[in-house]
Amino acid sequence: MNPSQHIVKSYDEELQRLTGEIVGMGELARRQLIAAIAAVENRDNEAARKVPDDDDLIDQLEQDVSRDVVQLLVVRSPMARDLREVVAALRIASDYERIGDYAANIAKRALVLNESPLVKPVRILPRLAQVAGELLTEVTAAYRDRDADRALAAWHQDEHLDALYTGLFRELLTYMMEDPRTITPCTHLLFMAKNVERIGDHATNIAENVYFIVHGQMIPADRRKADTSASINPELPAAD
Amino acid sequence: MNPSQHIVKSYDEELQRLTGEIVGMGELARRQLIAAIAAVENRDNEAARKVPDDDDLIDQLEQDVSRDVVQLLVVRSPMARDLREVVAALRIASDYERIGDYAANIAKRALVLNESPLVKPVRILPRLAQVAGELLTEVTAAYRDRDADRALAAWHQDEHLDALYTGLFRELLTYMMEDPRTITPCTHLLFMAKNVERIGDHATNIAENVYFIVHGQMIPADRRKADTSASINPELPAAD
Repeated sequence: MNPSQHIVKSYDEELQRLTGEIVGMGELARRQLIAAIAAVENRDNEAARKVPDDDDLIDQLEQDVSRDVVQLLVVRSPMARDLREVVAALRIASDYERIGDYAANIAKRALVLNESPLVKPVRILPRLAQVAGELLTEVTAAYRDRDADRALAAWHQDEHLDALYTGLFRELLTYMMEDPRTITPCTHLLFMAKNVERIGDHATNIAENVYFIVHGQMIPADRRKADTSASINPELPAAD
Repeated sequence: MNPSQHIVKSYDEELQRLTGEIVGMGELARRQLIAAIAAVENRDNEAARKVPDDDDLIDQLEQDVSRDVVQLLVVRSPMARDLREVVAALRIASDYERIGDYAANIAKRALVLNESPLVKPVRILPRLAQVAGELLTEVTAAYRDRDADRALAAWHQDEHLDALYTGLFRELLTYMMEDPRTITPCTHLLFMAKNVERIGDHATNIAENVYFIVHGQMIPADRRKADTSASINPELPAAD
């Protein structure tokens, strides 16, 4: 093996290691979401307390990614696609870290929710989280395989999540109006649902970064969904 | 001037340009927050519609920063503090971009809120936003001057914002329970308040990055406030 081949192989190894760390973050973040929602469904305080503790692992992985990215920048001075890889790695790791925070927040709210009597709309939340979980599976696989088409498909799935969120939001408002004693638990459910919706937004950010790695540009306008976030409807919360 | 001096001067110029873009983002993001809150206070739909439009400017500046950072990485291969500068620039720009999004979201919700009769707790929101605006002024100045002490002081101010947010959250829940007709507007106020609280979190991220640029490490544990986010109290929303 000549030295040049050695350097190439070693760079690939470093990129593989970075990819492995980030895919690991993605799987962990998805499992944290599932665990948080299960804690809500089962009113399981012990399970709910475990989620914020496990969030430290995701935070640690983000630190590892940052360290490896800086190391790569210093030692390799990457160009073109290689540079996009490391810039995107930083961004994607930051999105997974936020997703982990939202899952931890849901679990913390579950502990508060469990102090109130059970309210009916709890059951839509798992459906919402299931769609978000599938979105996470897709964007993580799209990143692992650097598959821009899969990333784009996942990006469009987020519309479905937004529609479900809007439905849950309406149902929660109706429920609170019908029975004001449910205002406190329903408010926590509102914020939990919002957290799941935000997880979807971060998943779409990840999809955008996969597209950016492969194509060297953001998703062009003609491949984007129509932007409905500015639409004003008293029953619809404006998108964050 | 010898070539080496020329290169040094030019690198400094590039860093100054990057700093100028980011300080510009910070000032714009703060003005957007003020404009959004004024639109809520004055029930001014025209002013509210302007905020999301102006958010494009912040998004454009973030694109400029990303482009300049990539350019700097390619041409300069910066090391040590210079590398921290560019990595932090990316992160700080991303935080200001999110702050702009939260301000735009508040303005969009103002349009929805203005379709309901005026509710009393509106008046706490400006106080909350004032503290967040001061926090933004401080972290932007800390970044401009690379002043780690000022960044740390701002970082601690976020506790005050969190306490105000908790107070507003409680007041809104009480208000909804007392008069269920206010549930829809109060829910929008809840999310607006949450957006301001999140702006504070992004301001603390910026403070952390200023500290990182100057000291080469995150804020150490003994300089951090006690983490109270895991405290469980039925009246307190868990921190995001």
